[in-house]
Amino acid sequence: MSDIGIILGSDTDLPKIRDCIKILEEFGVSFEIIISSAHRTPEQTHEWAKSARAKGLKVIIAVAGGAAHLPGVVAAQTTLPVIGVPVETPIAGGLDSILSILQMPSGIPVATMAAGKSGGINAALFAITILAISNEGLLLKLEAHRKKTAENISDNNKKLKSQGYAKYIDALENEKDP
Amino acid sequence: MSDIGIILGSDTDLPKIRDCIKILEEFGVSFEIIISSAHRTPEQTHEWAKSARAKGLKVIIAVAGGAAHLPGVVAAQTTLPVIGVPVETPIAGGLDSILSILQMPSGIPVATMAAGKSGGINAALFAITILAISNEGLLLKLEAHRKKTAENISDNNKKLKSQGYAKYIDALENEKDP
Amino acid sequence: MSDIGIILGSDTDLPKIRDCIKILEEFGVSFEIIISSAHRTPEQTHEWAKSARAKGLKVIIAVAGGAAHLPGVVAAQTTLPVIGVPVETPIAGGLDSILSILQMPSGIPVATMAAGKSGGINAALFAITILAISNEGLLLKLEAHRKKTAENISDNNKKLKSQGYAKYIDALENEKDP
Amino acid sequence: MSDIGIILGSDTDLPKIRDCIKILEEFGVSFEIIISSAHRTPEQTHEWAKSARAKGLKVIIAVAGGAAHLPGVVAAQTTLPVIGVPVETPIAGGLDSILSILQMPSGIPVATMAAGKSGGINAALFAITILAISNEGLLLKLEAHRKKTAENISDNNKKLKSQGYAKYIDALENEKDP
Amino acid sequence: MSDIGIILGSDTDLPKIRDCIKILEEFGVSFEIIISSAHRTPEQTHEWAKSARAKGLKVIIAVAGGAAHLPGVVAAQTTLPVIGVPVETPIAGGLDSILSILQMPSGIPVATMAAGKSGGINAALFAITILAISNEGLLLKLEAHRKKTAENISDNNKKLKSQGYAKYIDALENEKDP
Amino acid sequence: MSDIGIILGSDTDLPKIRDCIKILEEFGVSFEIIISSAHRTPEQTHEWAKSARAKGLKVIIAVAGGAAHLPGVVAAQTTLPVIGVPVETPIAGGLDSILSILQMPSGIPVATMAAGKSGGINAALFAITILAISNEGLLLKLEAHRKKTAENISDNNKKLKSQGYAKYIDALENEKDP
Amino acid sequence: MSDIGIILGSDTDLPKIRDCIKILEEFGVSFEIIISSAHRTPEQTHEWAKSARAKGLKVIIAVAGGAAHLPGVVAAQTTLPVIGVPVETPIAGGLDSILSILQMPSGIPVATMAAGKSGGINAALFAITILAISNEGLLLKLEAHRKKTAENISDNNKKLKSQGYAKYIDALENEKDP
Amino acid sequence: MSDIGIILGSDTDLPKIRDCIKILEEFGVSFEIIISSAHRTPEQTHEWAKSARAKGLKVIIAVAGGAAHLPGVVAAQTTLPVIGVPVETPIAGGLDSILSILQMPSGIPVATMAAGKSGGINAALFAITILAISNEGLLLKLEAHRKKTAENISDNNKKLKSQGYAKYIDALENEKDP
Repeated sequence: MSDIGIILGSDTDLPKIRDCIKILEEFGVSFEIIISSAHRTPEQTHEWAKSARAKGLKVIIAVAGGAAHLPGVVAAQTTLPVIGVPVETPIAGGLDSILSILQMPSGIPVATMAAGKSGGINAALFAITILAISNEGLLLKLEAHRKKTAENISDNNKKLKSQGYAKYIDALENEKDP
Repeated sequence: MSDIGIILGSDTDLPKIRDCIKILEEFGVSFEIIISSAHRTPEQTHEWAKSARAKGLKVIIAVAGGAAHLPGVVAAQTTLPVIGVPVETPIAGGLDSILSILQMPSGIPVATMAAGKSGGINAALFAITILAISNEGLLLKLEAHRKKTAENISDNNKKLKSQGYAKYIDALENEKDP
Repeated sequence: MSDIGIILGSDTDLPKIRDCIKILEEFGVSFEIIISSAHRTPEQTHEWAKSARAKGLKVIIAVAGGAAHLPGVVAAQTTLPVIGVPVETPIAGGLDSILSILQMPSGIPVATMAAGKSGGINAALFAITILAISNEGLLLKLEAHRKKTAENISDNNKKLKSQGYAKYIDALENEKDP
Repeated sequence: MSDIGIILGSDTDLPKIRDCIKILEEFGVSFEIIISSAHRTPEQTHEWAKSARAKGLKVIIAVAGGAAHLPGVVAAQTTLPVIGVPVETPIAGGLDSILSILQMPSGIPVATMAAGKSGGINAALFAITILAISNEGLLLKLEAHRKKTAENISDNNKKLKSQGYAKYIDALENEKDP
Repeated sequence: MSDIGIILGSDTDLPKIRDCIKILEEFGVSFEIIISSAHRTPEQTHEWAKSARAKGLKVIIAVAGGAAHLPGVVAAQTTLPVIGVPVETPIAGGLDSILSILQMPSGIPVATMAAGKSGGINAALFAITILAISNEGLLLKLEAHRKKTAENISDNNKKLKSQGYAKYIDALENEKDP
Repeated sequence: MSDIGIILGSDTDLPKIRDCIKILEEFGVSFEIIISSAHRTPEQTHEWAKSARAKGLKVIIAVAGGAAHLPGVVAAQTTLPVIGVPVETPIAGGLDSILSILQMPSGIPVATMAAGKSGGINAALFAITILAISNEGLLLKLEAHRKKTAENISDNNKKLKSQGYAKYIDALENEKDP
Repeated sequence: MSDIGIILGSDTDLPKIRDCIKILEEFGVSFEIIISSAHRTPEQTHEWAKSARAKGLKVIIAVAGGAAHLPGVVAAQTTLPVIGVPVETPIAGGLDSILSILQMPSGIPVATMAAGKSGGINAALFAITILAISNEGLLLKLEAHRKKTAENISDNNKKLKSQGYAKYIDALENEKDP
Repeated sequence: MSDIGIILGSDTDLPKIRDCIKILEEFGVSFEIIISSAHRTPEQTHEWAKSARAKGLKVIIAVAGGAAHLPGVVAAQTTLPVIGVPVETPIAGGLDSILSILQMPSGIPVATMAAGKSGGINAALFAITILAISNEGLLLKLEAHRKKTAENISDNNKKLKSQGYAKYIDALENEKDP
């Protein structure tokens, strides 16, 4: 029995949420993943969404791009919180995905995250934030995660001070193009 | 038994397709209308779409705004041609509605019309165009309709020539603000 | 002690979430409201956000427009789930508000709702959805609310069938311009 | 005598509809292709469009980018259904092509598909959908095609379950950059 | 025999170029106006454009909105300079009209003006600028017109200095809402 | 001798900076205003900008809309700091004005403010911020202004607590439509 | 003495108008080129624009990107026709350049071409179109150029018919990635 | 004690302001750099901003992308002038960053620069422009810098005249792809 259900419209979206999954693993949150399209496998999508609560899922993460109907279609079949992750596209970097997920009519909410890589990561963290309302253990991990993020920046500042900006930038650019 | 099925996500969209319906009546094409949301009444929407072909419908017109999932959700449940009409919104005049209907993934096509009033009218005409492929009677009406449209412009040119542009503009503006 | 904290960047945004508040009242969910700007009263905003969990709040709804930093600034000070509601603006109907709330960096998620009136309503419903994960009573109310929404549409269809579309549209338009 | 006529504004758009053509071949639908610009060879375009119905064509697919006038210009010369496929451009990924095809004035409809590769594929499928209204053989193929699409997703889910997400993603990325 | 030909896609666009026509009259430049749509009266449009040079026209002003194909369609039929005036629409104030006129393929240029009222005025002035290359009389009028425009600003500055900004603003706002 | 020079492309922009001027008066900062267009009175604009520093001006506020070249053209003629205020337009609420002022090439900076009313107010405050670097008196006024802004919000919260949200909203809406 | 003056805001824009220059050479139209920025060398720009007519220039082509003020600034100093060519940028493919050139205030027109390569080519052709109003020789060349463009398309159709679409596409793609 | 404080939301933004830093060094202006996020290290950001004036900083440059809250959050804690530099993103080249920095509410101004490389350079030059109001030495350097920029263009024109455009373009393109 998993806490989080992840649904993707296409297997080609899987790499875009690799970091999302890693966060869930890092926090020890159980999850299941399904590939199911709002349009190509509507019955599977409805059934999965409809039975999500009964199966014990607590939060759903739905990933889609373009006319990204999946998060809204899932939200129409469940009273669990649904988090939508827009996939980047050529249309202004994913404005189609963003607006298709975001502009839901009143009655059926979807919680939209940023387009791109940080959207996937934040979907995982937001799901954990929801679970952590009543889970002390997760809350402590969440606080530790925030602390570590802050410490990374502190480390970067030390490195910047000791190396100087020029060396720091050169090192960053070498990482990108080895 | 109707030829055209019209489905709207909300009754507030009804006034936006008044002219669409008038065209169908003018051409003597039978139609049925249903209000059914992709999100608020998903089961009704699926059933209606799934049974559309068996009921004898030949073309579907789906009207929606914002995260306008309705046309795509209907298209996922039928192999009939689905025409999507985006409703105007404050987001750049309906860019959210347009992209949510237009950017369908490969496999499940939706034929998108313009946002606004002309989109509704053209949905009706496009549906008739489809029916007219194998319906001589409709084809003749379609050709007559085009001819009349052209004659209206011809009449406007005569009026413009006889009145001069200044009077013509004054008359147009008086119509708007009586 | 309230379950939901609502924070607005300006009192002029209050009317935009009237329906949001009504939903909370309808569901019997306790809430507190504070006007506090990310930029004009940063200390008050930080303190309120920082003490939110200790005070017993479970979910935060943050409403802002333009360079809508408030939801992100609040999320940076708490590990509670933060829901952002973008206020409509002249920039493409609120694209500035949407992107400023949505495009959060990885680490600090904000759950973004639609711009406009449905965004406020859905923020309330999404907050309730979160609470309902472990609150049977709320879950029943949520299911009843969805059922009622569906029944309204069913009623509309009956009215449409009995009146015909022309009368229905006339009635709708008379409501708008009495 | 072909069922579908494909018209492109430039031979450089040919590769963008390779998958469109493959679908037609796969379904055994006859087609003809012509390169003809709305602006550079207007007479040829008019003549081709005007004689399309008499030649036996039933549906037209028109592909164009930028100020993509071709679908509208063709639609002005025929009462056959015209499907417009916007080519991707640097302007927000093809927003110029999309709006130039989509925003047709009332009277002359064009059925617009998505920008990019899925737009071409869906143009073919939509044309087939139209033909399948009165062609049982095509309808069966269409249903089989949908079934196969759904089965592919089902296979993906099996692969995902047996391999785990990490291996699946690695395999996907190796495919892209061998 | 006129120097300038003005073509509009619809008579409803006439009021939008009232100021354009007034400029032509003020400069004593002869013109003819025709209402002719790229889509609804394509033959009339082609004939008019094709015969424009032989009739003695020297510059063409084409006004259109939405999928504003008219300027490009006219330019395809003549080697006269064609000036396109985009009509404002709800899509971001006319971005559809602008891009449909502007993004012409190489080979058939259209000179695009601003959307809105200043676009019409500038179309007239640009046409005059073209004629004035080899017309001393028009050149003198053009220079006088620019001088007068500058003098108006100089008068405004005098008024602003003598009245103070507060009275000036009050007067401006009274003009708007009498 | 004034500290701030305000330049506007058109007298119709004057009402849009009424609040900007009021801020300057409130802070006791001296200013001069000139109406001068980048395009209609280029010589006057150049001379004014070129002589600005010698006249004793310390900061320039330039207001313009559409192809809003004025701030950049002024910045090209002076080494004083130039603040650009974009005027709202129908193009997505002023996206044309924003980008024309903002996207200056390297070498000639312009400090861009928000489109709309808050842009004018912030231009005044930013100019004061610059002067306050070395002016203790202004700094104290700036701090007092910020404090007052925060106190207003505190007053609003008291009013909200005592009246309740429903009365507060009613009062706000009565103010708008008396 | 040249007919056409080309002005560029930066030498890095030169490659973007290589095809523009080639067209002028092909038509035997004399031209001069100057690099001069609206902001970095304003005096040179003004002088060049102001003396353009006296020097014998007949049409000006101004190329710029971003806050592309150059065409408007040149147009403010001359009564010659000015053609603006927007350079592509990362902002939606050059929407900043397009709007900065296009949205000129009434009084000072600039004729805007498409962003990207076709904009440069069409600037040359539009300049030639202007000169051809009263130049029979150029007119004949213009007509020949159009004819050749149409013949190229005719050749492409022959090649497509003889080779089939698959080979044609393969050949096109080999050209791109040899 | 430094004159300029540079704050970045992430170390990955460092390379984007390399040229900004070089300008400051070239002008001999002292500066300090800190990496501090509005969301990940809010306390550090507040403290740094709050103590900026006391430490002797005179101008702040804040660099951020996406929901780029950093410049506004810093401006809320200081009465020093804050210059915001939007980092380019896939959303239309950085429109999210631009609007998040630009659309500040009245009361707390941020001076926004262009997205991309020229934004960083101009942030440095604008900071220097502010310091140069009362610093003759810096003013002379600023004037010299402008002169040199103009001379570069003059050198380019000489090179262009002597080499011809074809060789010049070839040389430019060889530089890019050596």
